[in-house]
Amino acid sequence: MRVTPWEVKEELTDSLYKKLVKEFGIKPIDQEVIERIKKHTKEIHFMLRRKIFFAHRDLLWLLDEYEKGNRFFLYTGRAPDGPIHIGHLVPWIFTKWLQEKFNVELWFQFPDEEKFLFKQVSFDETKKWTRENMLDVIALGFKENKTHFLVDTKHANLMYKEACKVAKHITFSTVKAVFGFTNEANIGMIFYTAMQAVPAFLPSILKNKNMPCLIPLGVDQDPHFRIARDVLPKLGFYKPALIHAKFMPGLKGTKTKMSSSDVNSTIWLTDSDEEVRRKIIKHAFSGGRGSLEEHKKLGGIPAIDVSYQWLYYLFEPDDKKIREIYESYKSGALSTIELKEYLIKKIITFLHQHRKKRKKAEKKLNKFIF
Amino acid sequence: MRVTPWEVKEELTDSLYKKLVKEFGIKPIDQEVIERIKKHTKEIHFMLRRKIFFAHRDLLWLLDEYEKGNRFFLYTGRAPDGPIHIGHLVPWIFTKWLQEKFNVELWFQFPDEEKFLFKQVSFDETKKWTRENMLDVIALGFKENKTHFLVDTKHANLMYKEACKVAKHITFSTVKAVFGFTNEANIGMIFYTAMQAVPAFLPSILKNKNMPCLIPLGVDQDPHFRIARDVLPKLGFYKPALIHAKFMPGLKGTKTKMSSSDVNSTIWLTDSDEEVRRKIIKHAFSGGRGSLEEHKKLGGIPAIDVSYQWLYYLFEPDDKKIREIYESYKSGALSTIELKEYLIKKIITFLHQHRKKRKKAEKKLNKFIF
Repeated sequence: MRVTPWEVKEELTDSLYKKLVKEFGIKPIDQEVIERIKKHTKEIHFMLRRKIFFAHRDLLWLLDEYEKGNRFFLYTGRAPDGPIHIGHLVPWIFTKWLQEKFNVELWFQFPDEEKFLFKQVSFDETKKWTRENMLDVIALGFKENKTHFLVDTKHANLMYKEACKVAKHITFSTVKAVFGFTNEANIGMIFYTAMQAVPAFLPSILKNKNMPCLIPLGVDQDPHFRIARDVLPKLGFYKPALIHAKFMPGLKGTKTKMSSSDVNSTIWLTDSDEEVRRKIIKHAFSGGRGSLEEHKKLGGIPAIDVSYQWLYYLFEPDDKKIREIYESYKSGALSTIELKEYLIKKIITFLHQHRKKRKKAEKKLNKFIF
Repeated sequence: MRVTPWEVKEELTDSLYKKLVKEFGIKPIDQEVIERIKKHTKEIHFMLRRKIFFAHRDLLWLLDEYEKGNRFFLYTGRAPDGPIHIGHLVPWIFTKWLQEKFNVELWFQFPDEEKFLFKQVSFDETKKWTRENMLDVIALGFKENKTHFLVDTKHANLMYKEACKVAKHITFSTVKAVFGFTNEANIGMIFYTAMQAVPAFLPSILKNKNMPCLIPLGVDQDPHFRIARDVLPKLGFYKPALIHAKFMPGLKGTKTKMSSSDVNSTIWLTDSDEEVRRKIIKHAFSGGRGSLEEHKKLGGIPAIDVSYQWLYYLFEPDDKKIREIYESYKSGALSTIELKEYLIKKIITFLHQHRKKRKKAEKKLNKFIF
């Protein structure tokens, strides 16, 4: 199995997530966890109900601490190397909900050296995309006075020293085993995980108080924090708690990942209405039948239909509506084109609103940068 | 042969330095180099005449550039983990001479994470010693407006990004081969050499102009810059030129190194007059004979006499005088105790003057920190 922060070579299936739970040693999100969260949030986010956030580490401990008055902070991030696509939004929209419901601080890391070290991306590009991506993040509505952006190269005078403290406890053997590095890995890649660990305890240093940390993340990022969870107690900090999201599937099939290198695998936040329509109509893999007649007779297969899955993951938070769509598509009453049109409308509406908010974000940018 | 920045396991002999020239692939300082330097400096520093600076890389190229009007800058440094001893002064006193004679900028690095990563030293200690060591460096008389201190953790917002650019071109295989790291090396150690490379081109970035760099250094630091010289041209910068110093021998024998962990192997700049006297009288290995009578008959052996060697390396810059001392010690006219008293006086005089200058350095500290 190859799932690392830089490579996901597996098909996105239920059995993959089951395997990840077992092999990573993470805990499934079950009814107990959901009830414990609900105690504080009153309602439950659809991404939890639908197990899009499907696993965790130490979430119950985090809630124990919260109930004792030991507030946590949130930490998530984005390695800036290009525009934002809708798959990126899944953990952030959930993070925003957590911030609102628990009224906590969020530290948002932009590790602008990561893609420079791991891919063919220049620092000029990462600089441009850091700014662009920040605007998209702000537009999602995070709390202005409780959200702090950290940019690795910009805030290195705060972060590098702390990263060295982490690095001292990590050997090459460890990163080799966890990430699959060879001896030909560059020494920046090798060091990098130490920088990613820093926001999980930097707020505790700045406030001179050990605070629990909760990290909503794509499950592929878990390896970084397996290491961080080993090291942080040695530095006198709590292990960060994690909550893991599944990958929203790419347009070309429910088992495929969205890929930044394939423009037809996803929708970018900058895509025009026409572009959205073209991509969904042309590329969204359909679980419908060969002809409308056949479809009406046999019904569609929501489980393999990307349009349905996208509604399920992101664009139809209403459980009653998503159930209706499921039933009528499965029965054949709802055709593929009708389903696609429903999704297109949802996406276009979202993008229009997002762009309005994004314009207003320009003015707030400096308030978000720590 | 084991000579790395963290370990010198060889006896300090002429044959060691010959081996280093051969195995490191560095060039001996010969009459041609000396004449070329003299063309600009008019006089020649005793450390050059005496081949205490014994080897170089690309020094003739550097002078070619200088003669074309392409000014170089100097770069040297100190990993702060304790007080300064007199052995540390050798490259700095020479660097100061170069700065004066060529009237150039000096970038002085304090890599305060190095000893944290490689030894059992806390960041609280490195912080304290960074300040203490800076005062000693200033007291040596570097030009106030042309000398810039870089502290790795403090200036990481300038340095970390540049270090990543270097790091991208260095694999684990390379640092393993050059420094002898195993898979159990921590990932901070592995990354560190990239930080040490940065001051060799950071001034070129800040001035937006590619400038040659000359690094006076202890020969054990050469491995770092073998790597840097490989990488910097890939980033569009010149290979730094180097000039290598021998190790000033420790008190316990001319083949031994001074060791910060053995207080009786060296003199600290903070040692009292009594402490200086005690150490030299008691611990300075003598090339004299068993009795004064025998000494007068057979003469002493300057080559194995640490007191003589210390005068030669640092405390008697006058060639005529050192020759006289050599002859009269060799003939037996000068006794061991007379030689030691001569050295003690020189050291005490130096330390008194140094402390006076060091007191005045406090006020200048902030002007030196970049």
